Amino acid sequence: METLSTNKAFGGTQGVYRHASSATGTDMTFSVYVPPHEDGASLPVVWYLSGLTCTHANVTEKGEFRAACAELGLIFVAPDTSPRGEGVPDDLAGGYDFGLGAGFYVDATETPFAANYRMWSYVTEELPALVAAYFPVDLARQSIMGHSMGGHGALTIGLRLPDRYRAISAFAPIVAPSQVPWGEKALTGYLGVDRSAWRRHDAVALIEDGARVAELLVDQGEGDAFLTDQLRPELLARACADAGIDLTLRMRPGYDHSYYAISTFMADQLHWHAARLRRV
Amino acid sequence: METLSTNKAFGGTQGVYRHASSATGTDMTFSVYVPPHEDGASLPVVWYLSGLTCTHANVTEKGEFRAACAELGLIFVAPDTSPRGEGVPDDLAGGYDFGLGAGFYVDATETPFAANYRMWSYVTEELPALVAAYFPVDLARQSIMGHSMGGHGALTIGLRLPDRYRAISAFAPIVAPSQVPWGEKALTGYLGVDRSAWRRHDAVALIEDGARVAELLVDQGEGDAFLTDQLRPELLARACADAGIDLTLRMRPGYDHSYYAISTFMADQLHWHAARLRRV
Repeated sequence: METLSTNKAFGGTQGVYRHASSATGTDMTFSVYVPPHEDGASLPVVWYLSGLTCTHANVTEKGEFRAACAELGLIFVAPDTSPRGEGVPDDLAGGYDFGLGAGFYVDATETPFAANYRMWSYVTEELPALVAAYFPVDLARQSIMGHSMGGHGALTIGLRLPDRYRAISAFAPIVAPSQVPWGEKALTGYLGVDRSAWRRHDAVALIEDGARVAELLVDQGEGDAFLTDQLRPELLARACADAGIDLTLRMRPGYDHSYYAISTFMADQLHWHAARLRRV
Repeated sequence: METLSTNKAFGGTQGVYRHASSATGTDMTFSVYVPPHEDGASLPVVWYLSGLTCTHANVTEKGEFRAACAELGLIFVAPDTSPRGEGVPDDLAGGYDFGLGAGFYVDATETPFAANYRMWSYVTEELPALVAAYFPVDLARQSIMGHSMGGHGALTIGLRLPDRYRAISAFAPIVAPSQVPWGEKALTGYLGVDRSAWRRHDAVALIEDGARVAELLVDQGEGDAFLTDQLRPELLARACADAGIDLTLRMRPGYDHSYYAISTFMADQLHWHAARLRRV
């Protein structure tokens, strides 16, 4: 693992790192914020998954998470959203919503994406092991959050690994990719036309198929331009109601899809996570 | 004035605006954050001047000022750091520290810069009048802060207009441009070789020449790569001690020159400003 930068912030260290990923077959860059802590401490870790077009840098620069993480003693990890580099196939049509910057947190099975687009394995297996080797994380205390496509990632990963994550939340998530244009394009491209293979990567379908967690938290701007065609939080609300999952869905008047909205609610969500990450 | 974007954030509105400046003869872009407030309220305003290479966008995206401004009821204005556009002369040598992005908050007198590089007039006269016309500001309650070159701007403007600004602070400011390479290059280029003309644009020289304010606040990282050759806070400390100005100089171990440092101390400085901006 190579250190690209470290900067002291809010008493802790914001770092950016690169490593050769076996999951994706490419170099991968990610950021880690380690809050101030005592020597020998083992800290809870919050995984943050980013949205379409983002890298680790967007939330690292604009997310306003460090003050709360420093106060609450949380490590905050932000992976990239796709493999990148020479030879990594991209959207042939040049779209922003597939290919580079749009990995959708799946292990692709379709040619030519299957070789590199293995973000599920990267985020759930390879990166946690790497982070645990280099940072003072307590793997018994993990939680996950994300924005938009990354909210989809956080929800699906959290629902499929309920024993691993003590808290699962999202900002403006894609809750039912099988039912919206972004998701239909991406899941077709990565997983093929058989929609039965999509259900493990669709939060609403996972709940319909029996996945259970105690609770979920979502902040969603009512002024979000993608609300009605791509995000559709009402589908998650209905699935959670049917399944007995305690969803807190906070509709936020006037807020849009940007980091101005995310940063507004970041500290709230981190406090919610921290309450669930305290040592038992 | 043209609105380029508005985003709801922390209950208020982060906007970016553009107007044709008579001071610089160019279009100028700036950002304004208006916190949540009651209709008809008139709010104190904090001016934030940015450093070399920056536009309004750096602090707007990375400054982490909105939470505190929302809590404290402060309007926060971030101008650009120079004129820009076709025909605006730049550093012939291509340096980052002169010309575009490096206006140094002076009214240039040297050819070819005098036509456009009038950032002193822009920041102290034209922009305040524009902001007062479009936003609910109480011009009786203004304060000023800045970073690096913008710290230089905040200190020199505050020292020369002590009745206007109720609080003056800086992050890692250039305190004595006449005595450091960045400043010598810029002041020579904009004001010419006669160093007597520089003293009105040098905080330490202004204090030596009799400028007085009650107090100043500076946060300075001890890990700042520019500390000993460009910033030299000890020169300000000595001038303030000699002049009886109450300087609070907080040396911050491990912090560098970046927005990771600025954002760490932003809320602290805004609380200090707010205490001095309360009515009466």
